[in-house]
Amino acid sequence: MSGNGLDYSALFNKDLPPPAGRWQGHPKYNFIGGHSDPDKVPTEGFIESADRVFHGDPRNISMYNFSGGPQGILPLREFVVDKLGRHRGIETTIDDVLITGGSGQAIELINEILLEPGDTAIVEAFSFSGALGNLRRRGVNVVGINLDGDGMRMDHLAEVLEGLRDKGVRPKYIYTIPTLQNPTGTVLTMERRHQLLALSEQYGVPIFEDECYADLIFEGEYENAIRSMDDTNRVLHIGSFSKTLGPGTRLGYVVAPWEVMSRLLSRKNDAGTGVMDQMIVGDYFNNHYDEHILDVRAALQRKCDVLGSALRESFGPSVEFDVPRGGMYLWVKLPDGVDSRALEGPALREGIAFNPGPDWSADPAAAAGYIRLCFALPSEAEIREGVEKLADVFRREGALP
Amino acid sequence: MSGNGLDYSALFNKDLPPPAGRWQGHPKYNFIGGHSDPDKVPTEGFIESADRVFHGDPRNISMYNFSGGPQGILPLREFVVDKLGRHRGIETTIDDVLITGGSGQAIELINEILLEPGDTAIVEAFSFSGALGNLRRRGVNVVGINLDGDGMRMDHLAEVLEGLRDKGVRPKYIYTIPTLQNPTGTVLTMERRHQLLALSEQYGVPIFEDECYADLIFEGEYENAIRSMDDTNRVLHIGSFSKTLGPGTRLGYVVAPWEVMSRLLSRKNDAGTGVMDQMIVGDYFNNHYDEHILDVRAALQRKCDVLGSALRESFGPSVEFDVPRGGMYLWVKLPDGVDSRALEGPALREGIAFNPGPDWSADPAAAAGYIRLCFALPSEAEIREGVEKLADVFRREGALP
Repeated sequence: MSGNGLDYSALFNKDLPPPAGRWQGHPKYNFIGGHSDPDKVPTEGFIESADRVFHGDPRNISMYNFSGGPQGILPLREFVVDKLGRHRGIETTIDDVLITGGSGQAIELINEILLEPGDTAIVEAFSFSGALGNLRRRGVNVVGINLDGDGMRMDHLAEVLEGLRDKGVRPKYIYTIPTLQNPTGTVLTMERRHQLLALSEQYGVPIFEDECYADLIFEGEYENAIRSMDDTNRVLHIGSFSKTLGPGTRLGYVVAPWEVMSRLLSRKNDAGTGVMDQMIVGDYFNNHYDEHILDVRAALQRKCDVLGSALRESFGPSVEFDVPRGGMYLWVKLPDGVDSRALEGPALREGIAFNPGPDWSADPAAAAGYIRLCFALPSEAEIREGVEKLADVFRREGALP
Repeated sequence: MSGNGLDYSALFNKDLPPPAGRWQGHPKYNFIGGHSDPDKVPTEGFIESADRVFHGDPRNISMYNFSGGPQGILPLREFVVDKLGRHRGIETTIDDVLITGGSGQAIELINEILLEPGDTAIVEAFSFSGALGNLRRRGVNVVGINLDGDGMRMDHLAEVLEGLRDKGVRPKYIYTIPTLQNPTGTVLTMERRHQLLALSEQYGVPIFEDECYADLIFEGEYENAIRSMDDTNRVLHIGSFSKTLGPGTRLGYVVAPWEVMSRLLSRKNDAGTGVMDQMIVGDYFNNHYDEHILDVRAALQRKCDVLGSALRESFGPSVEFDVPRGGMYLWVKLPDGVDSRALEGPALREGIAFNPGPDWSADPAAAAGYIRLCFALPSEAEIREGVEKLADVFRREGALP
């Protein structure tokens, strides 16, 4: 910048987050975020699909909204309908499916149409950092519901809903990740799913069901989506392709009744979701979903085992975690009194990145003693090495005996 | 929806635009939006590039931010730097380039970091509907500067800046589409580009330069970007890939100094721009940009001629328009007293879609007598047929003698 350069400081919106720092590259031992398994990116399948779709109907790339309109291209919406029917018990049609730029945009749009500053939203006590951050940016009151090994506790939810009603507050929704909860990995039992629907009806509060991870359960048969049990339009359901193909594909979806869909569409100001991604992913999954997902699950299960063993070996009994039924995370409790935020910098300096708990918590202080480790991206060798080095750092910092 | 369905009407944010209607499909004679030429989608080139990039570095699809960080993948940023250097006279580096989801996201992010309700932004009197709509949604005061055949009038801009200063108002930016202005197709002269920079310096107001269409000029040599003459960081420059490849590829870019870039990044909450698009487009353009752009320009020039001839033939002397030096639009003035909005519905019922002028105007009423026609998407035969039918509709509605 030359000496007479324009100074923007007086021009910025006064309500901005701190500026970003320069990109430092990915850490060597990368346990953060929702990265996927790099060995499971279906290279050959993408090439085949690209060949097919660019030969098939490429002229439509010249149009906004392609040939399917603003809800997304038809083959991908048809895949979502088919997958949700076969794997999640959901009966829906392409008219109720909106393809979004990742499930993050799905959350953004749903929040945009439902929330105003001062509103109240109910979430799981530990929950997705992106969803919590979005609520906080909007000035929404976030109320956390306790979790146990079976997911969100319905007794606590009933108590909170009753307490809010007594204060004249109608929450805008109950946000839940029922199947492989982020970060805890729990699965809400069928009994609780029915109870949740009953509470939703009793208090007139919609359920915002985020099933970003449901495809990644290690078993063949598992709990159907809450949306599958609802014929009253009270469940807004979202999902993602990032976790099964890689977050480089920015694709997710919303399933919602037209009353909501028509509002989401009028707020979706992005001139359409990227068509190349939609074409290639739609073609690939319409041809290969079932085999691909079995392959991904098996790889994740192996890595989950490796991470669990490595933690037990290097950290010993001073950390606690439950082995989840699927997904890509372990949610690890550190010894009492340890603050995971203080360990982030020292670990990064050794090339090891993890997510400190507070960002994943309705009450940040309540998760100071937790870390989230994603096991999908690193190789099995990197998991073992990284965990060993991480334990060294923690010990050096006095966080482990 | 069953009888006991949840009613969302009391739950919606109270400040929402009207709900969207159901998608009705593309009209037969489609002169709206910024669609591109379907015959110029480089099908074989995309297939070649997809083959190369998915074989090359596919593992990175498993990561947020790929291998280039949140500003976008390196090959595409390198292409932008190279193209801007060779075609627009801009010297920059990949550190000052951010890849966005279309130039629409570039506008959204720049507005997000600079604007608050009640701020003032200066625009060209006729301007891009998306930019104007974004400003209006934010409650920003929009001040239009008159245009003539040489682009924005600097005498009027000086007068407006002086008047605002007298009232103690420092506008947040001057938004301009200097090269193939949307919708008028004018090109700001070099003399005025220098005057604009001088006024920007005199009043401390940044220039927001939107060059979405600059690649589409029909000539070999033409005016350099305003950003190329600035070494004081006062020009924020954006561009798009939608117009050269098709809006199905949701890719655009911002060139900005780090003081601004670091703020754009901290507001870019989309978990990264789609990587498949970036990989394929980056590879294709790094290998084929120069030949592709000549091909696109030639096709657009032919269609521009066809539309001009068809208008003169079917509408006669009662409409006025200038033939632009490039781009994809004609901005057509209807006979005095005609309101283009009243003609939109009757035309659509005959399968003909055009953009009524008011959405492209800082003062909507001032453009009631204009329509914008995009000639890129329809074939030459469709242009001729569509214009003939449109003239019939206009005559039947009493808008033409």
